Amino acid sequence: MDKQQRIYLDWNATTPLKDEVLAEMLPFLRDQYGNPSSTHWWGQQARRAIDRSRRAIAKALGCRQGEITFLSGGTEANNLALRGLVDCDEPKKSHIITSAIEHPCILATAKSLEATGVDVDYVPVDALGHVRLDKLERLLRPNTALVSIMLANNDVGTIQPIKDLSKIVREKAPHAKIHSDAVQAIGKIPVQLDELDVDMMSISAHKLCGPKGVGCLYVRQGITLTPQITGGGQELRRRSGTENVCGIVGLGSAMTAAVDAVGDYQSDVSHLRDQLFQLISDGVNGDVVRHGPTDETVLPNTLSLAFQGLDSLSLLVNLDLEGIAVSSGSACSSGRVDPSHVLSAMGVAPELAMSTLRLSLGCYTSSDDITRAGSCIAKVVNRLRETRRS
Amino acid sequence: MDKQQRIYLDWNATTPLKDEVLAEMLPFLRDQYGNPSSTHWWGQQARRAIDRSRRAIAKALGCRQGEITFLSGGTEANNLALRGLVDCDEPKKSHIITSAIEHPCILATAKSLEATGVDVDYVPVDALGHVRLDKLERLLRPNTALVSIMLANNDVGTIQPIKDLSKIVREKAPHAKIHSDAVQAIGKIPVQLDELDVDMMSISAHKLCGPKGVGCLYVRQGITLTPQITGGGQELRRRSGTENVCGIVGLGSAMTAAVDAVGDYQSDVSHLRDQLFQLISDGVNGDVVRHGPTDETVLPNTLSLAFQGLDSLSLLVNLDLEGIAVSSGSACSSGRVDPSHVLSAMGVAPELAMSTLRLSLGCYTSSDDITRAGSCIAKVVNRLRETRRS
Repeated sequence: MDKQQRIYLDWNATTPLKDEVLAEMLPFLRDQYGNPSSTHWWGQQARRAIDRSRRAIAKALGCRQGEITFLSGGTEANNLALRGLVDCDEPKKSHIITSAIEHPCILATAKSLEATGVDVDYVPVDALGHVRLDKLERLLRPNTALVSIMLANNDVGTIQPIKDLSKIVREKAPHAKIHSDAVQAIGKIPVQLDELDVDMMSISAHKLCGPKGVGCLYVRQGITLTPQITGGGQELRRRSGTENVCGIVGLGSAMTAAVDAVGDYQSDVSHLRDQLFQLISDGVNGDVVRHGPTDETVLPNTLSLAFQGLDSLSLLVNLDLEGIAVSSGSACSSGRVDPSHVLSAMGVAPELAMSTLRLSLGCYTSSDDITRAGSCIAKVVNRLRETRRS
Repeated sequence: MDKQQRIYLDWNATTPLKDEVLAEMLPFLRDQYGNPSSTHWWGQQARRAIDRSRRAIAKALGCRQGEITFLSGGTEANNLALRGLVDCDEPKKSHIITSAIEHPCILATAKSLEATGVDVDYVPVDALGHVRLDKLERLLRPNTALVSIMLANNDVGTIQPIKDLSKIVREKAPHAKIHSDAVQAIGKIPVQLDELDVDMMSISAHKLCGPKGVGCLYVRQGITLTPQITGGGQELRRRSGTENVCGIVGLGSAMTAAVDAVGDYQSDVSHLRDQLFQLISDGVNGDVVRHGPTDETVLPNTLSLAFQGLDSLSLLVNLDLEGIAVSSGSACSSGRVDPSHVLSAMGVAPELAMSTLRLSLGCYTSSDDITRAGSCIAKVVNRLRETRRS
């Protein structure tokens, strides 16, 4: 199949790099190859590029430059937030709270900390995927070191009430730090640190039309984290290793572009998403169940749909043959398909969870893509349901 | 100054990306943006590119594909080797041995493990920077978990007798694992895993004309490391996080090119290095002290020279003004200049260490560069010595 004909509806998994972002990166893949730790001209060119990127990101989020630590991506950022904070605490006495619907890199890291003696509580969510603030309030303790709740969920797109959550945490557990995994939120909804009042926030470049292999962690001034990767003392001693200069330039460029355009993005993309939902609902014979919120507390680009009676992997494979890239709402690993932990936590029955597709749109998704994808998805669903019946 | 006129003699700090490597990376910065964990066509394109790179690297080193773990660079590789192995041991009872001249990312990590109760011994080196195998032999214990010795030193270029070291370790402490930081060696000297008989080896792309922000760790089949970054379970669960696809492609491409050309590199670059040394010795009024070995146990591209009476930072700055990029043999951090820990361990007096420059050449260094650099370095040294005298 011609690549031009393919339709990519998996923007929550990763995004294309914007041409203008690549253009800003290229000099650092060509002539400007200095090591930012070098004192000479080459090193200083690289150092200045990193400083510019840090400045741009701090401006976009509304924080100080020194509060941004560059590292290899969202997963490392989340690991550093959790492990780095707990290591500064007394692990055996430490208590952290996270939610049942976090990204695997939060959940796996929490599990690994539990194994070292850290006490971890998982706040449940309601049927739409919103963290239960009443439950959170009851879980907070005087010794709670950290509350880590994502800003927006990758599977169903639910946006969490972080502002309200912060108020509760500040009041009930003033010593606790608040971390938010904002990997799926930045560039999709407005994010301002002073409004959210969090202490740490994770960001990944490749989810917002930047390059893979780079991200950053916002760490509020005054908070000490134990470095998890030690060595030359780069990034204010928070994260050692020669800086990925072209990646950092790409992150700064992509983030500035995404944050600047977020208003238009929200209206354009949510319009396309609603259109896609309408086309599928109208075209499909039988039920279509939509998971998650349908109001302003869902990401503008995310649609989680269940097609009862079908399994998501067959749907995914059949759509791929038609040139349409989507994600199953289920976690596939080593051939075994489990229902998504997010849908399970929302109380979705396993059979329904296993028939769920995640469709995620992006800034290059066109109206024509949506028309074609909508009719194709309906066609494939109807065909598979026919086959099943016969 | 026109960039064309500048001469870069700091290849041990970082290297330019080869045009042909960038050409192989570009598709993954443009159209091929899939997430390798995605089941659909886009994901599979990315997955296959990673597999190809892993295959090429395994072939170049003489190991199995499954023994290569991609991560964000040499520093992370060294951290994973040390922390990952010790975490699987009983930290409070663990014993590791490293050398006094390792890269800061080994030494800082060893220090941080010491703080958690791990017992660390540092083997001394002789006057040329070779690890004292007799001392190592005496440090080995039945409970030694790890011996980590670099393959070649970044400051003076000394190549360590890893083959002989492995034999001693296997005999005296058969349970100990052997790790070697090969960041400065790959592409400069032939490296074959079966000859060296090490269990783990760290590699960085940006030291061998690949991109910054990517590297890999060879881990011999059967060895378990505790993952230091947890999440989606990428890289056979050894290192989570969406793979830096274009970086991994760049590492594979750069490493293949470097390893294929290593024979010519050794003869060409060592010839230029000797020429440079001759030009400087002949042109300088007064002493020039050369640190490290001058036989086949030094990297072909590295020259560590002391200019008694001068300080390396002034030399470096003055050479930078002339368009020549070199490194001081000293570690500069936050304005304070300490003598290099490598030279100190070799028994070099602090004053001499503080007057040392590291000149490191690479595959694009030309004979013309060497002629110009040689006379310019001699000129600057003579001028500074004149100024000092008057």
